[in-house]
Amino acid sequence: MSNIEKGTRPVPPTLKDIQEAAHRIKDFAIRTPLMENQELNEIVGGRLIFKPEVLQRTASFKFRGACNRLLQLSPEQKRAGVVAFSSGNHALATSAVARILGIPATIIMPADAPQAKVKGARANGAKVILYDRQKDDREAIGAEIANRTGATMVPPYDDPYVIAGQGTVGLEIMEDLSAMGVEADSLIAACSGGGLIAGLATAVRAKSERTQVYAVEPQGFDELARSLASGKRERNAPEAKSICDALQVVTPGELTFDINHRLLAGSLVVSDDEVRKAMRVAYDRLKLVLEPGGAVGLAAVLEQRIQTRDRTTVIVLSGGNVDPELYAEILTAQ
Amino acid sequence: MSNIEKGTRPVPPTLKDIQEAAHRIKDFAIRTPLMENQELNEIVGGRLIFKPEVLQRTASFKFRGACNRLLQLSPEQKRAGVVAFSSGNHALATSAVARILGIPATIIMPADAPQAKVKGARANGAKVILYDRQKDDREAIGAEIANRTGATMVPPYDDPYVIAGQGTVGLEIMEDLSAMGVEADSLIAACSGGGLIAGLATAVRAKSERTQVYAVEPQGFDELARSLASGKRERNAPEAKSICDALQVVTPGELTFDINHRLLAGSLVVSDDEVRKAMRVAYDRLKLVLEPGGAVGLAAVLEQRIQTRDRTTVIVLSGGNVDPELYAEILTAQ
Repeated sequence: MSNIEKGTRPVPPTLKDIQEAAHRIKDFAIRTPLMENQELNEIVGGRLIFKPEVLQRTASFKFRGACNRLLQLSPEQKRAGVVAFSSGNHALATSAVARILGIPATIIMPADAPQAKVKGARANGAKVILYDRQKDDREAIGAEIANRTGATMVPPYDDPYVIAGQGTVGLEIMEDLSAMGVEADSLIAACSGGGLIAGLATAVRAKSERTQVYAVEPQGFDELARSLASGKRERNAPEAKSICDALQVVTPGELTFDINHRLLAGSLVVSDDEVRKAMRVAYDRLKLVLEPGGAVGLAAVLEQRIQTRDRTTVIVLSGGNVDPELYAEILTAQ
Repeated sequence: MSNIEKGTRPVPPTLKDIQEAAHRIKDFAIRTPLMENQELNEIVGGRLIFKPEVLQRTASFKFRGACNRLLQLSPEQKRAGVVAFSSGNHALATSAVARILGIPATIIMPADAPQAKVKGARANGAKVILYDRQKDDREAIGAEIANRTGATMVPPYDDPYVIAGQGTVGLEIMEDLSAMGVEADSLIAACSGGGLIAGLATAVRAKSERTQVYAVEPQGFDELARSLASGKRERNAPEAKSICDALQVVTPGELTFDINHRLLAGSLVVSDDEVRKAMRVAYDRLKLVLEPGGAVGLAAVLEQRIQTRDRTTVIVLSGGNVDPELYAEILTAQ
């Protein structure tokens, strides 16, 4: 019996849970490669290794967690459907997995979510309900639907199976680094609710004493950085704004903060302009389309928020769903 | 002794030459992965497997051929330097390899080449000479420099070592398909001078009886399609224009046409608008930045120029060096 199933209160997933998730999702998710770019290595004076989750199905790591979660449902639960709230990538992922498994899906998204994400969820056959990010309580809307229809809520991050699914990113990184004979000094990835970074940290710290795991957050949504400093879950200002639509939560998840507080070396903070620059660098050098939230790790490295000189740093490029109008504007700005 | 070295007249490379090239360049070039996208598979009703050479160093397959060629130079030849003429990707590749190996490089480029390509060659330390595509003879300019300085000409396609280098794309595809237990029905890739497709066809036809190899060309630059039909090297109209800056030659190479005439199943032709659409699809679905010339294979498949329903088709995405202004314009058109 896995650690997850021991009690009713959610407990952090273990390496074994992540390994089981990897086995469970392997016929559905893509095992993304590691990538390297000599010119970027020269720029930072160290070795950068990228894990491009933009090449994952639905163009973000979120597919992994949603897949691991939905594959746990009983036949009865599958028939009753699923409900998810999400700023976008979890919506795309949940609706795509639901479509593959033949599960009816309702997705609750902010009205100002990128059109690419809203259209994508609808194209996957999901019923999309839009809410006002300032006025409405998305969790309450989700809970009401779940209560009324018997559908299962698929949380975006605060769920052991979701965290274990995202943790497969870290498992693959550690396996591939090991095959290359490389031990990384640091691994960095974007953080919003904290599911990705919690899963990554669980896998990485179980496999390496040396590798330090850092979250990265956009200015105004640095709840984790402040929570790590104070030791309790801090909240972001309601009026905060960022170009990183995928990284906007009010406060860290309960389960994810429990994990991240124990395992992370820190959380780095980058500005919107630094994110724009990183998106242009990814366009120029890596030929990968990154959304703002998917570029924060690269931004942190380019801005030298951690030491990369003479070090090996792994950077998760976590998502690539950006509306073409915004992308065009960022590419041609200066 | 390899086939290439048997006489003074250039002879087509063999599978063994390509295998030797793969061994020679393996510490420099990236072994790009194969990629698949379920949604695109559903759209065409078959299986599409992509070989993203945009993830190669200098963002095109050209790095392979230039690398294999420059690694053949003697110490004296390296000191005397190299000269290459190129619309862009061969310039980037040759200048990058020359920089790695410490060889002085002069690159002759059309004055209307994309700025990204001109700047890239200069950033690699090459001396760049611009010429007028309508008035000047780039081969004569190159020959004059080579004669005067003793530098070695690095031809963009009509050279057995260059063709063998590009053929490593095909070798990797066949090895990876074999590991997946897949035999492709068709393989398609862009054609300009014909070095990539000649190398691919050599590797693929040596490994599979079944896999048909198709070139793809832009309208106005369909010299290979017409040459295959007539059996002799046809010329494009001097006034022809295409968005595909990388795919504009006057006539097929002599050595490459000798190979392509024997080994290709045909050459498909796509319009500029079809190329623009394919670039948008790659942005939306694959999250890869393709330049126009790198998108012709995807365009041919999306426009059903060959049967893909119930078939397995491999598509080489050959290059990703496109100026941001043009890319932004293509993404936001409509």
